[in-house]
Amino acid sequence: MGRASKREEIAQAAFQQFHAQGFNATGINDITKAAGVPKGSFYNHFSSKEESALEALNRYAATMRFEVLTATDRPPLDRLRAHFEFLSRDTVENGFVRGCLVGNLGAEVADHSEEIRAAVKDGFDRWAALIGQVLAEAQEAGDLDGGLDVRATALFVVSAWEGTLIAARADKSAAPVDAFFRTVFDVVLR
Amino acid sequence: MGRASKREEIAQAAFQQFHAQGFNATGINDITKAAGVPKGSFYNHFSSKEESALEALNRYAATMRFEVLTATDRPPLDRLRAHFEFLSRDTVENGFVRGCLVGNLGAEVADHSEEIRAAVKDGFDRWAALIGQVLAEAQEAGDLDGGLDVRATALFVVSAWEGTLIAARADKSAAPVDAFFRTVFDVVLR
Repeated sequence: MGRASKREEIAQAAFQQFHAQGFNATGINDITKAAGVPKGSFYNHFSSKEESALEALNRYAATMRFEVLTATDRPPLDRLRAHFEFLSRDTVENGFVRGCLVGNLGAEVADHSEEIRAAVKDGFDRWAALIGQVLAEAQEAGDLDGGLDVRATALFVVSAWEGTLIAARADKSAAPVDAFFRTVFDVVLR
Repeated sequence: MGRASKREEIAQAAFQQFHAQGFNATGINDITKAAGVPKGSFYNHFSSKEESALEALNRYAATMRFEVLTATDRPPLDRLRAHFEFLSRDTVENGFVRGCLVGNLGAEVADHSEEIRAAVKDGFDRWAALIGQVLAEAQEAGDLDGGLDVRATALFVVSAWEGTLIAARADKSAAPVDAFFRTVFDVVLR
Protein backbone atom coordinates (compact mmCIF):
# COMPACT_ATOMS: atom_id res chain seq x y z
CA MET A 1 0.00 0.00 0.00
CA GLY A 2 1.41 3.42 -0.95
CA ARG A 3 1.55 6.29 1.49
CA ALA A 4 -1.51 8.03 0.02
CA SER A 5 -3.64 4.90 -0.03
CA LYS A 6 -2.57 4.07 3.53
CA ARG A 7 -3.78 7.49 4.67
CA GLU A 8 -7.04 6.86 2.82
CA GLU A 9 -7.52 3.46 4.50
CA ILE A 10 -6.84 4.92 7.95
CA ALA A 11 -9.11 7.93 7.43
CA GLN A 12 -11.95 5.75 6.16
CA ALA A 13 -11.55 3.25 9.01
CA ALA A 14 -11.49 6.08 11.56
CA PHE A 15 -14.69 7.51 10.08
CA GLN A 16 -16.45 4.13 10.26
CA GLN A 17 -15.20 3.35 13.78
CA PHE A 18 -16.18 6.77 15.17
CA HIS A 19 -19.61 6.48 13.55
CA ALA A 20 -20.26 2.96 14.82
CA GLN A 21 -18.55 3.07 18.23
CA GLY A 22 -18.19 6.73 19.22
CA PHE A 23 -15.05 8.75 19.89
CA ASN A 24 -13.93 7.55 23.30
CA ALA A 25 -14.78 3.89 22.65
CA THR A 26 -12.52 3.96 19.57
CA GLY A 27 -8.80 3.45 20.17
CA ILE A 28 -6.05 4.12 17.66
CA ASN A 29 -5.55 0.34 17.63
CA ASP A 30 -9.16 -0.19 16.56
CA ILE A 31 -8.61 2.17 13.66
CA THR A 32 -5.35 0.67 12.41
CA LYS A 33 -6.70 -2.86 12.86
CA ALA A 34 -9.82 -2.00 10.84
CA ALA A 35 -7.62 -0.34 8.22
CA GLY A 36 -5.32 -3.37 8.05
CA VAL A 37 -2.19 -1.29 8.63
CA PRO A 38 0.52 -1.52 11.31
CA LYS A 39 -0.29 0.20 14.61
CA GLY A 40 2.52 2.71 14.33
CA SER A 41 1.47 4.00 10.92
CA PHE A 42 -1.46 6.05 12.30
CA TYR A 43 0.83 8.85 13.44
CA ASN A 44 2.52 9.03 10.06
CA HIS A 45 -0.76 10.41 8.75
CA PHE A 46 -2.58 12.02 11.68
CA SER A 47 -1.17 13.94 14.60
CA SER A 48 -3.92 12.75 16.96
CA LYS A 49 -7.20 10.85 17.22
CA GLU A 50 -8.85 14.27 17.28
CA GLU A 51 -7.38 15.16 13.90
CA SER A 52 -8.73 11.93 12.41
CA ALA A 53 -12.16 12.79 13.88
CA LEU A 54 -12.09 16.17 12.10
CA GLU A 55 -11.36 14.32 8.86
CA ALA A 56 -14.21 11.91 9.68
CA LEU A 57 -16.60 14.87 10.03
CA ASN A 58 -15.62 16.03 6.52
CA ARG A 59 -16.16 12.54 5.17
CA TYR A 60 -19.53 12.29 6.88
CA ALA A 61 -20.64 15.66 5.46
CA ALA A 62 -19.73 14.40 1.98
CA THR A 63 -22.26 11.54 2.41
CA MET A 64 -25.15 13.88 3.24
CA ARG A 65 -25.93 14.74 -0.40
CA PHE A 66 -26.52 18.43 0.19
CA GLU A 67 -26.99 18.78 -3.57
CA VAL A 68 -30.55 17.49 -3.01
CA LEU A 69 -31.18 20.78 -1.16
CA THR A 70 -29.45 23.08 -3.63
CA ALA A 71 -30.79 21.55 -6.86
CA THR A 72 -33.58 23.52 -8.53
CA ASP A 73 -35.40 20.58 -10.12
CA ARG A 74 -38.23 20.54 -7.57
CA PRO A 75 -40.13 23.00 -5.37
CA PRO A 76 -38.06 23.99 -2.29
CA LEU A 77 -40.09 22.14 0.35
CA ASP A 78 -40.09 18.96 -1.77
CA ARG A 79 -36.31 19.13 -1.82
CA LEU A 80 -36.21 19.60 1.96
CA ARG A 81 -38.43 16.55 2.43
CA ALA A 82 -36.31 14.49 0.01
CA HIS A 83 -33.20 15.53 1.95
CA PHE A 84 -34.56 14.26 5.26
CA GLU A 85 -36.02 11.16 3.62
CA PHE A 86 -32.53 10.39 2.34
CA LEU A 87 -31.00 10.98 5.78
CA SER A 88 -33.64 8.90 7.54
CA ARG A 89 -32.93 5.89 5.32
CA ASP A 90 -29.47 5.38 6.85
CA THR A 91 -31.01 4.97 10.29
CA VAL A 92 -34.31 3.28 9.45
CA GLU A 93 -32.83 0.73 7.02
CA ASN A 94 -29.84 -0.12 9.22
CA GLY A 95 -31.70 -1.19 12.34
CA PHE A 96 -31.66 2.22 14.06
CA VAL A 97 -27.98 2.49 14.84
CA ARG A 98 -25.17 5.03 14.47
CA GLY A 99 -27.24 8.19 13.93
CA CYS A 100 -25.49 11.35 12.76
CA LEU A 101 -21.73 11.61 13.30
CA VAL A 102 -21.94 15.39 13.76
CA GLY A 103 -24.53 15.12 16.53
CA ASN A 104 -22.78 12.15 18.13
CA LEU A 105 -19.44 13.93 18.36
CA GLY A 106 -21.27 17.04 19.53
CA ALA A 107 -22.96 15.14 22.36
CA GLU A 108 -19.87 13.16 23.36
CA VAL A 109 -16.89 15.44 22.72
CA ALA A 110 -17.96 19.09 22.26
CA ASP A 111 -17.33 19.90 25.94
CA HIS A 112 -13.85 18.37 25.87
CA SER A 113 -12.27 19.25 22.54
CA GLU A 114 -12.33 22.80 21.29
CA GLU A 115 -11.39 21.67 17.77
CA ILE A 116 -14.16 19.11 17.52
CA ARG A 117 -16.66 21.52 19.07
CA ALA A 118 -15.77 24.15 16.45
CA ALA A 119 -16.06 21.57 13.63
CA VAL A 120 -19.47 20.38 14.90
CA LYS A 121 -20.65 23.99 15.15
CA ASP A 122 -19.40 24.63 11.63
CA GLY A 123 -21.24 21.51 10.39
CA PHE A 124 -24.51 22.62 11.99
CA ASP A 125 -24.08 26.22 10.73
CA ARG A 126 -23.47 25.21 7.11
CA TRP A 127 -26.35 22.78 7.19
CA ALA A 128 -28.75 25.30 8.78
CA ALA A 129 -27.67 27.92 6.23
CA LEU A 130 -28.56 25.58 3.34
CA ILE A 131 -31.93 24.76 4.91
CA GLY A 132 -32.55 28.45 5.60
CA GLN A 133 -31.94 29.15 1.92
CA VAL A 134 -34.49 26.50 0.92
CA LEU A 135 -37.04 27.99 3.33
CA ALA A 136 -36.40 31.50 1.96
CA GLU A 137 -36.99 30.17 -1.56
CA ALA A 138 -40.23 28.57 -0.37
CA GLN A 139 -41.33 31.92 1.06
CA GLU A 140 -40.51 33.69 -2.21
CA ALA A 141 -42.49 31.05 -4.11
CA GLY A 142 -45.45 31.63 -1.78
CA ASP A 143 -45.27 28.05 -0.45
CA LEU A 144 -44.42 29.09 3.10
CA ASP A 145 -45.74 31.69 5.57
CA GLY A 146 -43.71 34.86 4.91
CA GLY A 147 -43.76 35.69 8.62
CA LEU A 148 -41.77 32.60 9.60
CA ASP A 149 -38.27 33.38 10.92
CA VAL A 150 -36.26 31.42 8.38
CA ARG A 151 -32.95 31.42 10.29
CA ALA A 152 -34.43 30.31 13.60
CA THR A 153 -36.61 27.70 11.88
CA ALA A 154 -33.66 26.23 9.96
CA LEU A 155 -31.56 26.04 13.12
CA PHE A 156 -34.47 24.42 14.93
CA VAL A 157 -35.00 21.83 12.19
CA VAL A 158 -31.33 20.79 12.35
CA SER A 159 -31.51 20.45 16.14
CA ALA A 160 -34.79 18.56 15.95
CA TRP A 161 -33.31 16.11 13.45
CA GLU A 162 -30.33 15.40 15.70
CA GLY A 163 -32.56 14.62 18.65
CA THR A 164 -34.85 12.56 16.45
CA LEU A 165 -32.01 10.21 15.53
CA ILE A 166 -31.11 9.70 19.20
CA ALA A 167 -34.73 8.93 20.04
CA ALA A 168 -35.03 6.52 17.08
CA ARG A 169 -31.90 4.66 18.22
CA ALA A 170 -33.25 4.43 21.76
CA ASP A 171 -36.71 3.40 20.57
CA LYS A 172 -35.42 1.08 17.83
CA SER A 173 -38.34 2.30 15.78
CA ALA A 174 -39.25 4.87 13.18
CA ALA A 175 -41.81 6.53 15.50
CA PRO A 176 -39.53 9.53 16.29
CA VAL A 177 -38.70 9.91 12.58
CA ASP A 178 -42.41 9.83 11.70
CA ALA A 179 -43.10 12.44 14.41
CA PHE A 180 -40.35 14.63 12.91
CA PHE A 181 -41.83 14.52 9.39
CA ARG A 182 -45.35 15.02 10.68
CA THR A 183 -44.50 18.02 12.86
CA VAL A 184 -41.91 19.70 10.64
CA PHE A 185 -43.73 19.37 7.33
CA ASP A 186 -47.40 19.37 8.38
CA VAL A 187 -47.23 21.86 11.26
CA VAL A 188 -44.08 24.04 11.22
CA LEU A 189 -43.83 24.42 7.44
CA ARG A 190 -47.51 24.12 6.54
CA MET B 1 -18.43 6.18 56.05
CA GLY B 2 -21.11 3.53 56.48
CA ARG B 3 -22.04 1.12 53.72
CA ALA B 4 -25.20 3.04 52.74
CA SER B 5 -23.47 6.42 52.65
CA LYS B 6 -20.60 4.91 50.63
CA ARG B 7 -23.08 3.67 48.05
CA GLU B 8 -24.64 7.13 47.98
CA GLU B 9 -21.23 8.81 47.45
CA ILE B 10 -20.36 6.42 44.62
CA ALA B 11 -23.75 6.74 42.94
CA GLN B 12 -23.65 10.52 43.11
CA ALA B 13 -20.06 10.68 41.83
CA ALA B 14 -20.93 8.33 38.96
CA PHE B 15 -23.89 10.53 38.02
CA GLN B 16 -21.72 13.67 38.00
CA GLN B 17 -18.86 12.02 36.09
CA PHE B 18 -21.13 10.53 33.42
CA HIS B 19 -22.90 13.86 33.00
CA ALA B 20 -19.68 15.89 32.74
CA GLN B 21 -17.42 13.42 30.89
CA GLY B 22 -19.65 10.88 29.17
CA PHE B 23 -19.84 7.12 29.66
CA ASN B 24 -16.72 5.84 27.91
CA ALA B 25 -14.49 8.67 29.12
CA THR B 26 -15.39 7.81 32.72
CA GLY B 27 -13.46 4.99 34.34
CA ILE B 28 -14.40 3.22 37.57
CA ASN B 29 -11.27 4.88 39.02
CA ASP B 30 -12.61 8.33 38.14
CA ILE B 31 -15.80 7.53 40.01
CA THR B 32 -14.20 6.16 43.17
CA LYS B 33 -11.65 8.98 43.18
CA ALA B 34 -14.41 11.59 42.90
CA ALA B 35 -16.37 9.78 45.62
CA GLY B 36 -13.31 9.66 47.89
CA VAL B 37 -13.59 5.91 48.44
CA PRO B 38 -11.11 3.08 47.80
CA LYS B 39 -11.00 1.77 44.22
CA GLY B 40 -12.17 -1.70 45.14
CA SER B 41 -15.32 -0.50 46.89
CA PHE B 42 -17.19 0.25 43.64
CA TYR B 43 -18.02 -3.40 43.05
CA ASN B 44 -19.38 -3.78 46.59
CA HIS B 45 -22.25 -1.54 45.47
CA PHE B 46 -22.57 -1.88 41.70
CA SER B 47 -22.06 -4.93 39.53
CA SER B 48 -20.81 -2.86 36.59
CA LYS B 49 -20.27 0.66 35.23
CA GLU B 50 -23.48 0.09 33.26
CA GLU B 51 -25.45 -0.50 36.46
CA SER B 52 -24.15 2.77 37.92
CA ALA B 53 -25.20 4.53 34.69
CA LEU B 54 -28.75 3.20 35.10
CA GLU B 55 -28.76 4.63 38.63
CA ALA B 56 -27.39 7.91 37.23
CA LEU B 57 -30.33 8.10 34.81
CA ASN B 58 -32.74 7.78 37.73
CA ARG B 59 -30.89 10.51 39.60
CA TYR B 60 -30.91 12.75 36.56
CA ALA B 61 -34.67 12.24 36.07
CA ALA B 62 -35.20 13.29 39.69
CA THR B 63 -33.56 16.66 38.92
CA MET B 64 -35.93 17.42 36.03
CA ARG B 65 -38.77 18.68 38.25
CA PHE B 66 -41.55 16.98 36.33
CA GLU B 67 -43.95 18.34 38.97
CA VAL B 68 -43.83 21.64 37.06
CA LEU B 69 -45.65 19.79 34.25
CA THR B 70 -48.17 17.97 36.40
CA ALA B 71 -49.11 20.84 38.73
CA THR B 72 -52.44 22.48 38.00
CA ASP B 73 -51.58 25.96 39.21
CA ARG B 74 -51.16 27.43 35.75
CA PRO B 75 -52.56 26.91 32.24
CA PRO B 76 -51.05 23.81 30.56
CA LEU B 77 -48.90 25.60 27.97
CA ASP B 78 -47.50 27.96 30.63
CA ARG B 79 -46.39 24.91 32.60
CA LEU B 80 -44.77 23.42 29.51
CA ARG B 81 -42.87 26.64 28.90
CA ALA B 82 -41.80 26.84 32.56
CA HIS B 83 -40.58 23.24 32.33
CA PHE B 84 -38.30 23.98 29.37
CA GLU B 85 -37.21 27.29 30.87
CA PHE B 86 -36.12 25.36 33.95
CA LEU B 87 -34.27 22.77 31.84
CA SER B 88 -32.60 25.43 29.71
CA ARG B 89 -31.16 27.18 32.76
CA ASP B 90 -28.82 24.27 33.52
CA THR B 91 -27.20 24.63 30.10
CA VAL B 92 -27.42 28.40 29.57
CA GLU B 93 -26.20 29.35 33.06
CA ASN B 94 -23.38 26.79 33.13
CA GLY B 95 -21.51 27.85 30.00
CA PHE B 96 -23.28 25.46 27.61
CA VAL B 97 -21.87 22.20 28.83
CA ARG B 98 -23.13 18.74 29.82
CA GLY B 99 -26.57 18.83 28.19
CA CYS B 100 -29.09 16.10 29.05
CA LEU B 101 -27.75 12.86 30.50
CA VAL B 102 -30.55 10.85 28.87
CA GLY B 103 -29.75 12.17 25.40
CA ASN B 104 -26.00 11.90 25.96
CA LEU B 105 -26.17 8.25 26.98
CA GLY B 106 -28.60 7.65 24.13
CA ALA B 107 -26.19 9.13 21.59
CA GLU B 108 -23.09 7.46 23.02
CA VAL B 109 -24.22 4.10 24.39
CA ALA B 110 -27.69 3.12 23.07
CA ASP B 111 -26.20 1.04 20.23
CA HIS B 112 -23.86 -0.84 22.58
CA SER B 113 -25.76 -1.54 25.79
CA GLU B 114 -29.24 -3.02 25.64
CA GLU B 115 -29.88 -2.06 29.27
CA ILE B 116 -28.91 1.58 28.80
CA ARG B 117 -30.83 1.77 25.53
CA ALA B 118 -33.97 0.47 27.27
CA ALA B 119 -33.52 2.95 30.14
CA VAL B 120 -33.05 5.87 27.73
CA LYS B 121 -36.15 4.79 25.79
CA ASP B 122 -38.06 4.54 29.04
CA GLY B 123 -36.88 8.04 30.03
CA PHE B 124 -38.00 9.51 26.71
CA ASP B 125 -41.33 7.63 26.83
CA ARG B 126 -42.25 8.81 30.32
CA TRP B 127 -41.26 12.35 29.51
CA ALA B 128 -43.19 12.39 26.22
CA ALA B 129 -46.22 10.92 28.01
CA LEU B 130 -46.18 13.77 30.55
CA ILE B 131 -45.85 16.38 27.81
CA GLY B 132 -48.59 14.65 25.79
CA GLN B 133 -50.87 14.93 28.82
CA VAL B 134 -50.15 18.67 29.10
CA LEU B 135 -50.91 19.12 25.39
CA ALA B 136 -54.16 17.17 25.72
CA GLU B 137 -55.15 19.42 28.65
CA ALA B 138 -54.35 22.46 26.50
CA GLN B 139 -56.60 21.08 23.75
CA GLU B 140 -59.43 20.50 26.25
CA ALA B 141 -59.00 24.06 27.51
CA GLY B 142 -59.25 25.35 23.96
CA ASP B 143 -55.67 26.72 24.09
CA LEU B 144 -54.35 24.39 21.38
CA ASP B 145 -55.54 23.28 17.95
CA GLY B 146 -57.69 20.20 18.56
CA GLY B 147 -56.42 18.64 15.32
CA LEU B 148 -52.82 18.42 16.52
CA ASP B 149 -51.58 14.85 17.06
CA VAL B 150 -50.70 15.11 20.73
CA ARG B 151 -48.60 11.93 20.95
CA ALA B 152 -46.49 12.69 17.88
CA THR B 153 -46.06 16.32 18.91
CA ALA B 154 -44.93 15.38 22.43
CA LEU B 155 -42.43 12.86 21.07
CA PHE B 156 -41.18 15.46 18.62
CA VAL B 157 -40.76 18.12 21.31
CA VAL B 158 -38.65 15.74 23.42
CA SER B 159 -36.45 14.90 20.42
CA ALA B 160 -36.16 18.55 19.44
CA TRP B 161 -35.05 19.48 22.96
CA GLU B 162 -32.33 16.82 22.94
CA GLY B 163 -30.92 18.09 19.66
CA THR B 164 -31.21 21.68 20.86
CA LEU B 165 -28.92 20.98 23.80
CA ILE B 166 -26.29 19.42 21.51
CA ALA B 167 -26.45 22.42 19.18
CA ALA B 168 -26.20 24.87 22.12
CA ARG B 169 -23.11 23.05 23.43
CA ALA B 170 -21.52 23.16 19.97
CA ASP B 171 -22.49 26.79 19.44
CA LYS B 172 -21.67 27.86 23.00
CA SER B 173 -24.66 30.13 22.72
CA ALA B 174 -28.37 30.26 23.52
CA ALA B 175 -29.31 30.67 19.83
CA PRO B 176 -30.47 27.03 19.47
CA VAL B 177 -32.44 27.32 22.73
CA ASP B 178 -34.08 30.54 21.51
CA ALA B 179 -34.93 28.84 18.21
CA PHE B 180 -36.51 25.97 20.16
CA PHE B 181 -38.76 28.28 22.21
CA ARG B 182 -39.67 30.36 19.20
CA THR B 183 -40.59 27.42 16.98
CA VAL B 184 -42.21 25.16 19.57
CA PHE B 185 -44.29 27.79 21.37
CA ASP B 186 -44.95 30.34 18.62
CA VAL B 187 -45.34 27.98 15.65
CA VAL B 188 -46.03 24.35 16.64
CA LEU B 189 -48.22 25.11 19.68
CA ARG B 190 -49.64 28.46 18.59
